[in-house]
Amino acid sequence: MHEKLKKLIRDVPNYPKKGVVFKDITTLIKNGSAFKEIIDILYDKCKDKKIDLVVAIESRGFILGGALALRLGVGIIPVRKKGKLPSYTVFEKYDLEYGTDSLEMHKDAIFKDQRILIVDDLLATGGTLKATARLVERLGGVVAGILVMIELLYLKGREKLLKYDFFSIMQYEKE
Amino acid sequence: MHEKLKKLIRDVPNYPKKGVVFKDITTLIKNGSAFKEIIDILYDKCKDKKIDLVVAIESRGFILGGALALRLGVGIIPVRKKGKLPSYTVFEKYDLEYGTDSLEMHKDAIFKDQRILIVDDLLATGGTLKATARLVERLGGVVAGILVMIELLYLKGREKLLKYDFFSIMQYEKE
Repeated sequence: MHEKLKKLIRDVPNYPKKGVVFKDITTLIKNGSAFKEIIDILYDKCKDKKIDLVVAIESRGFILGGALALRLGVGIIPVRKKGKLPSYTVFEKYDLEYGTDSLEMHKDAIFKDQRILIVDDLLATGGTLKATARLVERLGGVVAGILVMIELLYLKGREKLLKYDFFSIMQYEKE
Repeated sequence: MHEKLKKLIRDVPNYPKKGVVFKDITTLIKNGSAFKEIIDILYDKCKDKKIDLVVAIESRGFILGGALALRLGVGIIPVRKKGKLPSYTVFEKYDLEYGTDSLEMHKDAIFKDQRILIVDDLLATGGTLKATARLVERLGGVVAGILVMIELLYLKGREKLLKYDFFSIMQYEKE
């Protein structure tokens, strides 16, 4: 699926560490028609879901989230790494390979029962997306969908998101 | 100017440090019609400039840049803090209050003579925007315009950008 889009993604070997092949989306999103196609596909997946707000994850998720929020005609809420948001926040920890990190959202970002679309560039192990879904739910929001461009199937992140309506445009098996 | 939009921006006192009043745009961009109005205003300022690419600065700039690139029908290039881009980069240092930091762009992000629109959320001292303009120029691009939402007039960042076509939606004097 979407072989033309996949060809625009650059494989960067040994980044961020030896043995890992990084999927670099910068070569895709600098192509105006490919960027529009990505947003069109994501829009089609959520246009009937009565979305109230887009929640986008720092920082590549901001690029897609900004464009998709505009297309949907709704506002956008940033989820950021610890210490980056200026006002009162809620936070969720998630596991890294070694240790933990955490994500924050402003406490007053979401009203009760608002229908939230979560957007990021990539699903890997699912830690950040699951933490984000929890933040939305802790504030009383409803996770109406989770959309990403790329899914790394071999990391099985989708297993952490089984209760959500999840969609990825491009999937990769281990190379 | 734009008093209705200004009212949606939250003042956060003593962030990121004592004595500073931070202009928090998250309360504006979560309002769908205000977010659209911001993008409409920026679009009007650049729609006749024959823009080839949007260059957006990490990370709030990504939200505006993604939306504006979609609206213009062009691609988007991220400028990021050191070490965040996976492939070969060029970098520019800029001054902080104490010491320096640097911004990077992929070496192959821009072709010679492409017309580039630089987008960020805020102009403060102008260090990051000037460094970004230099990155564009070092790769052979033409800085066709620099657009931001907010300008802190008392920090005189515009003096660093005199040779560019600069526009801000909302301006603030020192409180």
